[in-house]
Amino acid sequence: MRAEIITIGDELLIGQVVDTNSAWMAEKLNENGIELFQITSVHDDREHIVAALNEAFNRADIVLTTGGLGPTKDDITKHVLCDYFGTHLIEDASVRAHIEDLYKDRPDVLNRLTATQWLVPECATILENRVGSAPLMVFHKDDKLLACMPGVPYEMKIAMEEQILPYIVSTLLRNSASTKITHKTLQVTGIPESALAILLEDFENAMPAGLHLAYLPKDGVIRLRLSSYGELTEAEMETYFDQLKTLTRDYMIADTGDPLEVIIGNILKSRHQTIATAESCTGGSLASLLAKHPGSSAFYFGSVVSYDNSVKEHLLGVPSEMIKAHGVVSEGVVCEMANSIRAQIGTDYAIATSGIAGPTGGTPEKPVGTVWIAWATPSGTTAECFHLGKLREQVIARTCQKALVGLLKRL
Amino acid sequence: MRAEIITIGDELLIGQVVDTNSAWMAEKLNENGIELFQITSVHDDREHIVAALNEAFNRADIVLTTGGLGPTKDDITKHVLCDYFGTHLIEDASVRAHIEDLYKDRPDVLNRLTATQWLVPECATILENRVGSAPLMVFHKDDKLLACMPGVPYEMKIAMEEQILPYIVSTLLRNSASTKITHKTLQVTGIPESALAILLEDFENAMPAGLHLAYLPKDGVIRLRLSSYGELTEAEMETYFDQLKTLTRDYMIADTGDPLEVIIGNILKSRHQTIATAESCTGGSLASLLAKHPGSSAFYFGSVVSYDNSVKEHLLGVPSEMIKAHGVVSEGVVCEMANSIRAQIGTDYAIATSGIAGPTGGTPEKPVGTVWIAWATPSGTTAECFHLGKLREQVIARTCQKALVGLLKRL
Repeated sequence: MRAEIITIGDELLIGQVVDTNSAWMAEKLNENGIELFQITSVHDDREHIVAALNEAFNRADIVLTTGGLGPTKDDITKHVLCDYFGTHLIEDASVRAHIEDLYKDRPDVLNRLTATQWLVPECATILENRVGSAPLMVFHKDDKLLACMPGVPYEMKIAMEEQILPYIVSTLLRNSASTKITHKTLQVTGIPESALAILLEDFENAMPAGLHLAYLPKDGVIRLRLSSYGELTEAEMETYFDQLKTLTRDYMIADTGDPLEVIIGNILKSRHQTIATAESCTGGSLASLLAKHPGSSAFYFGSVVSYDNSVKEHLLGVPSEMIKAHGVVSEGVVCEMANSIRAQIGTDYAIATSGIAGPTGGTPEKPVGTVWIAWATPSGTTAECFHLGKLREQVIARTCQKALVGLLKRL
Repeated sequence: MRAEIITIGDELLIGQVVDTNSAWMAEKLNENGIELFQITSVHDDREHIVAALNEAFNRADIVLTTGGLGPTKDDITKHVLCDYFGTHLIEDASVRAHIEDLYKDRPDVLNRLTATQWLVPECATILENRVGSAPLMVFHKDDKLLACMPGVPYEMKIAMEEQILPYIVSTLLRNSASTKITHKTLQVTGIPESALAILLEDFENAMPAGLHLAYLPKDGVIRLRLSSYGELTEAEMETYFDQLKTLTRDYMIADTGDPLEVIIGNILKSRHQTIATAESCTGGSLASLLAKHPGSSAFYFGSVVSYDNSVKEHLLGVPSEMIKAHGVVSEGVVCEMANSIRAQIGTDYAIATSGIAGPTGGTPEKPVGTVWIAWATPSGTTAECFHLGKLREQVIARTCQKALVGLLKRL
């Protein structure tokens, strides 16, 4: 079973919005044994939407669209679909009741434009959008299916999980031979991508047809992904994945594709241990990674973001003479930061970062990209110096990954 | 002049990677008067890449691809392009010299797979990839152009700015009548999207053909964008934008589309004022927003991320009796947090957040999504309570926006 996504909206094509929906949808489709063949982003334009629909239906069994379902004039998806399927808009009583209930305390929202939201194409199957006013619409075309969702990410996610995917599974997948799509990912660090590929050359050459290996380098960590689209049994996949683990054992830091902060969180939670951070150049990014996932308050206690030196001195107790003598980007300062936050908050572990993210602030001795990271653990504090590139966002992202890799090795 | 982007890589279609490149590229294309018509994401698959190229060339003058240029076996873009243009790979001496120089201190990288990176299609124009090993390739097809870049975001960005865009401007745009694409954006808050559309109904109905108005709601702020693709003069655009500003004056918080933290940073820098944050539920996200942009150290001093209550007590001095009496998500606690961080760091302003991001932790009185935000300013400290939805990531993102909006109003 093959799907395509069409994302509709000028905002995607002028760069005002990053499409985060498609990656999330792709993962959910794969989990349900549906291959995502293509993602296409088109303008809020009648001809463009129709052309994309026709092309997608030529290639795929399931077409999912996001966007263009708001009550304002620039959103035209619903009207285009009426023409496309030769139908017209009718009032849907249950959508109306839902919207009136949703905004019962918001008379300013219950206006005549919002009222257009309960008009739906007559031939569409309407599913409930629990958290918004745009009804979810499903259209059947021969033995194929089109499902339309809002582009607002959290509305789309609830729509997909609670309505669209169960509907697809119960209608289209029920009678089809189901495909087991399997991805297995491990993560390595400390080896260049090309050297890793040479290490794995014999393995790759001996792989059976139907097994795919992909290299995904990002911020100093390479994710290695084995994929099978129904061709291999689970046991066969397991065997190949074990071989891959053995071959990469000197570099492997994780045998799942989960973000490192999730892997760390799981280890700390299982041991009832805790961590805190003291951040300079990462400016809160490390904290937001560690605090991002549900349940993180069980192991993550907090951070001092000491962006200005005064904060390093007053809240972390770093002696100003130490800063004067060695600079803020130095082994002594970063160790002091880690020890101080660990002692003050009373956690088992602490990480501290201090570096020059750029674009300014570099010197010949400490160019942009120079970063010190310290890890304070129950068995002592150690620090390492890294050179992480020239671009601010890259330096920040790589520092976070190095900090997490270093912690993982010390757990 | 019309362009399309083709992003190549299985990782995009199984949801392992979010495509952040396209939005960035779209913005750059628009700045250069090039309309981006469509974005298409395809697999690392020969037939799929060829089909996408053919379709894109049918619609556009410029086709940009990202991805599939690594030295590993899963990356096939270069080989597909050789077949597509009926050419073959030859060694490029200057690419070889560049790669040998790039990795002169890394003998582990200079292996036989990396050596395949200096093989390039004979008919391609090769541009330098200053920061990576994959050469940038440009192909001419009749009067159209194909440019191929790596998918790694920072390599792509440097390639686009330093090589690809200047090349396009000097070859294709030199002789064509240039189009002035103009977008003007303002931001409003405190009015529902549908009510805003009713407020602007007469304005929209009176707009000339060629002027487009788009509504982009996100995290409680609506960006209103006026666009013209060469049809209107700059003065005409200015007139319509002024009308829009007048009509939305009661809700407008900014007359640019810049992120709020950038607008705030510019104001603070111009006044030589500073800010710090104390974050509970936002867990460092607010800090990372304020610290994200170059030059932020001039106004942003730091944060205490008090994810655990012990941090609120020990580092922010919030009395444990206050927490016991009112809970951490309360007006008193959040004001105390803001006052404490402002006093300790000595900044002009401080923001504090405390809320229940979920999925657990809600109570009937304080359900998930309940958030208190306090703003400490030279003229006093005030706080507001918000209800920001049910989904963790949404609560965190909306809290950050509310915090910034509230600050902007108090500056």
